[in-house]
Amino acid sequence: MNQTAKTSFVLSQRHLLGIENLTPQDVIGLLDLAEEFVELNRQIDKKRTTLRGRTLINLFFEASTRTQSSFELAGKRLGADVMNMSVASSSVKKGETVVDTAMTLNAMHPDLLVVRHHASGAVDLLSQKVDCAVVNAGDGAHEHPTQALLDALTIRRNKKRIEGLTVAICGDILHSRVARSNIILLNMMGARVRLVAPTTLLPPGVDRYGVEVARDMREGLAGADIVMMLRLQRERMNGSFIPSTQEYFHFYGLDQAKLRYAKPDALVMHPGPMNRGVEIDSAVADGAQSLIRQQVEMGVAVRMAVLEVLSRNLPNA
Amino acid sequence: MNQTAKTSFVLSQRHLLGIENLTPQDVIGLLDLAEEFVELNRQIDKKRTTLRGRTLINLFFEASTRTQSSFELAGKRLGADVMNMSVASSSVKKGETVVDTAMTLNAMHPDLLVVRHHASGAVDLLSQKVDCAVVNAGDGAHEHPTQALLDALTIRRNKKRIEGLTVAICGDILHSRVARSNIILLNMMGARVRLVAPTTLLPPGVDRYGVEVARDMREGLAGADIVMMLRLQRERMNGSFIPSTQEYFHFYGLDQAKLRYAKPDALVMHPGPMNRGVEIDSAVADGAQSLIRQQVEMGVAVRMAVLEVLSRNLPNA
Amino acid sequence: MNQTAKTSFVLSQRHLLGIENLTPQDVIGLLDLAEEFVELNRQIDKKRTTLRGRTLINLFFEASTRTQSSFELAGKRLGADVMNMSVASSSVKKGETVVDTAMTLNAMHPDLLVVRHHASGAVDLLSQKVDCAVVNAGDGAHEHPTQALLDALTIRRNKKRIEGLTVAICGDILHSRVARSNIILLNMMGARVRLVAPTTLLPPGVDRYGVEVARDMREGLAGADIVMMLRLQRERMNGSFIPSTQEYFHFYGLDQAKLRYAKPDALVMHPGPMNRGVEIDSAVADGAQSLIRQQVEMGVAVRMAVLEVLSRNLPNA
Repeated sequence: MNQTAKTSFVLSQRHLLGIENLTPQDVIGLLDLAEEFVELNRQIDKKRTTLRGRTLINLFFEASTRTQSSFELAGKRLGADVMNMSVASSSVKKGETVVDTAMTLNAMHPDLLVVRHHASGAVDLLSQKVDCAVVNAGDGAHEHPTQALLDALTIRRNKKRIEGLTVAICGDILHSRVARSNIILLNMMGARVRLVAPTTLLPPGVDRYGVEVARDMREGLAGADIVMMLRLQRERMNGSFIPSTQEYFHFYGLDQAKLRYAKPDALVMHPGPMNRGVEIDSAVADGAQSLIRQQVEMGVAVRMAVLEVLSRNLPNA
Repeated sequence: MNQTAKTSFVLSQRHLLGIENLTPQDVIGLLDLAEEFVELNRQIDKKRTTLRGRTLINLFFEASTRTQSSFELAGKRLGADVMNMSVASSSVKKGETVVDTAMTLNAMHPDLLVVRHHASGAVDLLSQKVDCAVVNAGDGAHEHPTQALLDALTIRRNKKRIEGLTVAICGDILHSRVARSNIILLNMMGARVRLVAPTTLLPPGVDRYGVEVARDMREGLAGADIVMMLRLQRERMNGSFIPSTQEYFHFYGLDQAKLRYAKPDALVMHPGPMNRGVEIDSAVADGAQSLIRQQVEMGVAVRMAVLEVLSRNLPNA
Repeated sequence: MNQTAKTSFVLSQRHLLGIENLTPQDVIGLLDLAEEFVELNRQIDKKRTTLRGRTLINLFFEASTRTQSSFELAGKRLGADVMNMSVASSSVKKGETVVDTAMTLNAMHPDLLVVRHHASGAVDLLSQKVDCAVVNAGDGAHEHPTQALLDALTIRRNKKRIEGLTVAICGDILHSRVARSNIILLNMMGARVRLVAPTTLLPPGVDRYGVEVARDMREGLAGADIVMMLRLQRERMNGSFIPSTQEYFHFYGLDQAKLRYAKPDALVMHPGPMNRGVEIDSAVADGAQSLIRQQVEMGVAVRMAVLEVLSRNLPNA
C-alpha cells in the first residue's frame, strides 16, 4: 500500500498541456506506469499514499461527468486531497476572469491543477500564471492529452503495439480535441492515421497533419486495425451545416455492415459519451470488437500515472 | 479506530435493491450492526478504516440533500474514497443512457454504487450490468430500503420491539417508495400495518399488501403505537387531482388534536423533508412525541451498516 | 505530520459568529496560530491529522467559489471528513426551512458546521439549534469574520503591526459584511478606520461605528497605510440607485492616480472576486502594492486556525 510505482522516469515537461509537447519516451514512460495502476485498480485495496499531503484541484469551466470523475478517483486513490470546482455557475458571473480564478486557486497552494475550458489555449495561458503542475483536461478544439494517452494504452494492451497499425479516426474531426491529440500521438508512435469524414467536418488545412483522408467509410476503413469513432458535437455547430442524424448515421454511423470494411480483427473505440444511433450503432458499441468500456478503465490508470509523474517534478518533491 | 464491527453476519444478497429481497435475519443483522455505528457516530473520533482503499460512488439521477449526505458521511466515516455524481445536468443531456452511465462508472472499478433514480426498476436494471455492490437509494415509487431500515431501527430503539406494534402510515401512499419499503419490512417483522389515506392517494390493488386501510385519521390512528407521516409529493402528481394544502391539512395533516386518536405513548415519524402545515403541524414535528431528528441520526448508522455488510460480499474481500 | 500546532490557546466562544463576539486575545491567538499554517501550506506535505475522525460540513445557502474552497481545503488539510452542501437548489424547494436543514444535518453529528446565508442573523439563529461548533462564512450584510481575520493577518505580516495604522475602506460599504467585520476588528486592534464612499453606499447611522467618513477618494486616502477596496455588489441593489460602472470607476475606482493620494508605501487589498475596471483598475490589482493574492493564501491558513481552535472546545475533545 505504501510502495511507490517502480517506474521512476521523469517527464520532460512541468505541465501536461498537450501531446504536442511530449517525446516518445514521455509517452512510453506514462503508459508503462499506467500499466501498474491498471493492476492496482482491479484490487480490493486501490489506495496508495504517493500523493498524501498534496492537493489536487479539478477546475472545470465546462461540465464533464466522466473526465472529472476519472481525475477525481485517480487523485483520491493516490492519497491526494481532491477538490472539485465547477466554475460555470459561480464566480464567473460576478465578473472574475479565468486568470483571476486560476491565480486565486494558486494562492491556496494546490500541487496539481486539472483544467477543462471551452476555449483553445486557455489552459496553456493559465499554466503560465501558477506555481503548480497543470493538466489539460480538454481545451476547446485544441487538445485532450489524457484521452489520447488512454486510447494509446488501450490499443497497446490489445494489439501489443502501436507502431505500424492503421487507425481510422471517423466523424466530427473538425470540433474534436480528441482527434487532434490522437493524431499527434499516433503519428509520433509510428501508426498510420486515416481521417474519415465529410469535408464539412474536416478542419481546414488537414493536409499538414501528415495523415490520409477519406470521404467515405468503405474507403476509410479498408485495412484498419482500429476504428475510432468520434461524438458528433452538434452543440458546437453554430451555422448552417448541422447534419440530420438519420442522414449522418446512414453515411458515417458505424454499424456491423460498415465495420466489415475494416480488418476482421479490427477493434472499435469511442471516447464517450456516445450518441447511440448517430455515430455508432448499439450492436457495435456493445459488441465483441468494442473496447469502449476498457477505455474508461484505462482512463483512471493513465490519469494516476500523469498525476504521479507530474508530482515528481514539483519543487521539494 | 482500526477495529471492525463485532457483528460478522453476511447478507443473503449481493446488492440491496429492496426490502422485498431480504430475510428477517438480514434485517436483524443490519439493525444490530447499525447499533454499533450509532455509538460510534456519537464519539469525537467517528472514523473507521473498514472501507479504506474501497471506492464508493453516489450516483443520483434525482436530487436529494439528505439521502446523499447520509451516504456520503457513512462512506467517509468508514474510510472509503467517496465520489458524488449528480447526473441530472451533465452527460444525460449529451444523449447517454442510464445503462451507459452505469457501465462507464463500473469500468472505473467502484466497490459500492449508491443509486437514486426517478424510474421504478432502474436501479435493479443497473445492478445487473455492474460488478460492484449496488444500493438502491430510492427508485421511483418502488423501494427505498435504507429508509425502511432506519425507520425500523428508530422504532426498535424506542419501543424495544417491532413485533406486535400497530404502525399507521398516513398520507400520500400512492407516490411513496418509503411507504412501500416500510410496509414490506414491518409486515415481515410482525407489526400490524395500517394505511391511512384518501382513496385517490392509495395505490390500486392495495388489498394485496396484507394491510389494514382507513380513509380517515380518527379511525386510522386508533390504537397506533407509531404514526408515520409521509410527504405530500405534489411534484409527482400530474393530472386532475392535486389537493389544496389547506384541505389536505384539515383532513390528513397531523396536529395535536389528531395525534390524540393514537395511543397516549404513540411516537411520530416522518422521512423528511417535511411540508410543515401540509402533512404535519410544527407543534407535532418538534414535539415530545416526535422521532424525526432521531430518524436522521439512525440513517447514517444504518447506511454504514449496509455499506460495511455489502463490502463483506465483494470478491477478494 | 502528526504534530499539532504549538499554540494551545482556547477561544472565548463556542462558535465563530462574528468579530463582535471576540476579544483582542481571541484575535491575536487566531492570528498566531494561523502563522503556523501559512508555513505548513507552503510545504509539499500539507497534511495534519488534528481533525481526523471529525466531520466538517460546508452548508452554503449562497454560492461562493472561493470561500467554500478555502474552508474545504482547510478542513481536508487538517484531516477532517469534509462534506459540501449547496442548498439553493435542493431541499429548500421541497419546502424545508433553514432550521429544518440545520437540525437535519445536526442529527448526522458534524463537529464543525460552516454556514453562509443570504440573510443577516440566519447563522446565529442556526447556531442555537445545533450541538456542533458553527462558523459564520458570511450572513447577509452582517458579518464575515474569517475575511476580517485573514485581512488582519495579511496586514500584520506586511506592516508588522495593526495598531496605529490608517486603513481606508472604500466603496460599497452599505452591502458589505466584509466592511462591517473589518471595522470591528480594526477598531478593536487600535487601527484608525476611514470609510470612503458616496452617501448612497454608506449604511444609515454610520457615525456610531466610531470611524472617520470621507465622500471622496482624495480626502479618504490621505495618509492611508492600507487601502481596502470592496466589490460593488450590484446584485444586492434593488431600487433606484444603481451607479453606472463608468461613473463609479471615475469617482471611486482605485487606479494608480488615486492610489498616489495614500502613503507612498500604502498597500492595496480586495476581498475578491474583483470587478476589474469597476472598483479597481487591473494595473493596481496586479501591481507591486497589491496584497490581493496574499489575502487568498492567508484565507486558508486563518480558516485552519479557526477550525482547529473551535474543535478544542468541542465536548470530549
